[in-house]
Amino acid sequence: MPEGWAYLDTAATAQKPRPVIDAITRGYAQDYATVHRGVYQRSADMTLAYEAARRRVAGFIGAQENEVVFVRGATEGINLVAQCWAGTQLKAGDRILLSALEHHSNIVPWQMMAEAKGLAIDVVPLTADHRIDLDAMAAMLTPAHKLVALAHVSNVLGSVLDVRRAADLAHGVGAKLLVDGCQAVARLGVDVRALDCDFYVFSGHKLYGPTGIGVLWGRAELLDAMPPYQGGGSMIDRVSFERTTYAPAPTRFEAGTPHIVGVLGLHAAIDYVSAIGLDRIHAHETALVRTTREALAGLNSVTLFGPEDSAGIVSFAIHGVHPHDIGTILDESRVAIRAGHHCAQPLMDLLGVPATARASFGVYNSPADVDALVKGIERVTRIFG
Amino acid sequence: MPEGWAYLDTAATAQKPRPVIDAITRGYAQDYATVHRGVYQRSADMTLAYEAARRRVAGFIGAQENEVVFVRGATEGINLVAQCWAGTQLKAGDRILLSALEHHSNIVPWQMMAEAKGLAIDVVPLTADHRIDLDAMAAMLTPAHKLVALAHVSNVLGSVLDVRRAADLAHGVGAKLLVDGCQAVARLGVDVRALDCDFYVFSGHKLYGPTGIGVLWGRAELLDAMPPYQGGGSMIDRVSFERTTYAPAPTRFEAGTPHIVGVLGLHAAIDYVSAIGLDRIHAHETALVRTTREALAGLNSVTLFGPEDSAGIVSFAIHGVHPHDIGTILDESRVAIRAGHHCAQPLMDLLGVPATARASFGVYNSPADVDALVKGIERVTRIFG
Repeated sequence: MPEGWAYLDTAATAQKPRPVIDAITRGYAQDYATVHRGVYQRSADMTLAYEAARRRVAGFIGAQENEVVFVRGATEGINLVAQCWAGTQLKAGDRILLSALEHHSNIVPWQMMAEAKGLAIDVVPLTADHRIDLDAMAAMLTPAHKLVALAHVSNVLGSVLDVRRAADLAHGVGAKLLVDGCQAVARLGVDVRALDCDFYVFSGHKLYGPTGIGVLWGRAELLDAMPPYQGGGSMIDRVSFERTTYAPAPTRFEAGTPHIVGVLGLHAAIDYVSAIGLDRIHAHETALVRTTREALAGLNSVTLFGPEDSAGIVSFAIHGVHPHDIGTILDESRVAIRAGHHCAQPLMDLLGVPATARASFGVYNSPADVDALVKGIERVTRIFG
Repeated sequence: MPEGWAYLDTAATAQKPRPVIDAITRGYAQDYATVHRGVYQRSADMTLAYEAARRRVAGFIGAQENEVVFVRGATEGINLVAQCWAGTQLKAGDRILLSALEHHSNIVPWQMMAEAKGLAIDVVPLTADHRIDLDAMAAMLTPAHKLVALAHVSNVLGSVLDVRRAADLAHGVGAKLLVDGCQAVARLGVDVRALDCDFYVFSGHKLYGPTGIGVLWGRAELLDAMPPYQGGGSMIDRVSFERTTYAPAPTRFEAGTPHIVGVLGLHAAIDYVSAIGLDRIHAHETALVRTTREALAGLNSVTLFGPEDSAGIVSFAIHGVHPHDIGTILDESRVAIRAGHHCAQPLMDLLGVPATARASFGVYNSPADVDALVKGIERVTRIFG
């Protein structure tokens, strides 16, 4: 990153460390070849690298490699589950439970499928300190609920979900639990077996990896029972105009030439965060969040959203100033935050604001970035004061 | 590419020129930011670059920018049309016309939709010299045909379709024409208005661009009438749990954070081939194909597939030798070809072979590569002779 730039928009997308960029460059230059098809050595090598990345992802989240599906990003992962699992397993009258803080990517696919299939959607409220209210969820769940879909870490509030308890509650009525892990995988160690969820999705670009690549994890028995997703090359067993048969999971869900170099870059990104250690990254970000919240809490005109222990993310408002103006003025001081609805309009409605300003942290941020942010906000309050 | 390596698998995926790799590296390093959301300058700049790439793609194929949808690749583009156009516009009893030489990506999505909706699929045969038989197609088309989906250039045979005539025939019965342009855009100048087709798809990685990015072009009036594809961020107008409304095309089809750097790399790839000139690339490849076909025709044990004027691709068989063995032995001589069914099993059935060997050319190939191929094939015939 450029000197003197405080990049505080990692929750939107992470900047890329050198080893990830190098892996991508190497993938497109000296190592480039297609996968799964070539009879020459370089293609065979690339296939090994591609499948090694799948094993690496599996190891990173405590899964088996045949449970790891490469997708464009978390959004596509959720849409895949909506189409291939909910679209075939659920029937009119079945219910889906979401929370009030979900990202649009964990709302709209379910709304589209609900409309197509006659499903109903219920919404778990938040606690006073902006967590998904699992006590309320326990009271709402019925045997009609077949799926619960929740964010592991809120992209607006940083609230961390007790996934294991959510899974226990969901399973108690026979529902499956899908977890949107976009903001979690770069901050918390994730073990899908320990969490006991059924589907887990995340995007590579928020994990210091490339754009256009993400992961859908699903329990093997669920993926095996799902029909294919997109039709095309690689996902088939045998094609004829009379009858086509399909490959097993996860290949069945990966039609066409995959984002080969995106997969290599994701592997490098996982190596990168693992070498540092997610515990250390989380502790580092937690310290930055604490400093930020303490400094902002001292400013009369600032309202903080989210719980005290927000993971890596601080959303706030300044009385009488539109969040976009905050973002624009901070940009003049070379502080990059996000201002807007953060693809979570229902949450904005709940908070009673059109938008928030959001600072989000990554492994590369330092206390100097927090200083720059706080100084910038003080400037905003002076300009609008 | 390494010295002394004859890479003849460009129809599977093209090697990347330096300007494309540099654009990707720059995109992930000094310019990296998210698009469509940031209130800071670098994100605004990245949004401009992303939309400039869309205009560049539009200019490259004679389209309007609001008709260009970024997808993972041609496979996804076809699936998107199958789901959002055929899935909503067609009804039981409607017919789809494909050809016998289609890639699985232009067969399986239609089979899946046909099964879901009760559609029927008809298959246009090939001429004796392995072109899609448009006279036969003229005789087959009926008002029940709502869609014709054909490859512009066959990925196995190199046969070039007269798209304009196919469009006229399709439109004559009120059907739409989708063209799979994967093998065409890197070799032939494409102007979708002049071709008069209705949908056109291609992948970036076969056009010297990045993996994980491709283009669906559709006529504005068709895209505008199609429902959303995947649900998520960016594709919405306004989300609430009561009612969600969607953005216009093409945004409506691009849910989630896009493959930002893939789009930048595709822009660079289009600049690269345009600077050389597709006329010159096509003439260059045509000369290499002619030399290859002449040399192989002189070998008794070799059978050539496809027409004399194959675009950039030569498929062949050697009597008594499995294509995989050809590929493996050529690899020992550092000649990379593909051997297999090329994701076109129905065509293999038609040709009466389990697989073919295929050499395919790109802008970087030279007569020395043809020499290496021919010498390698002579070695194969000696070993198995």
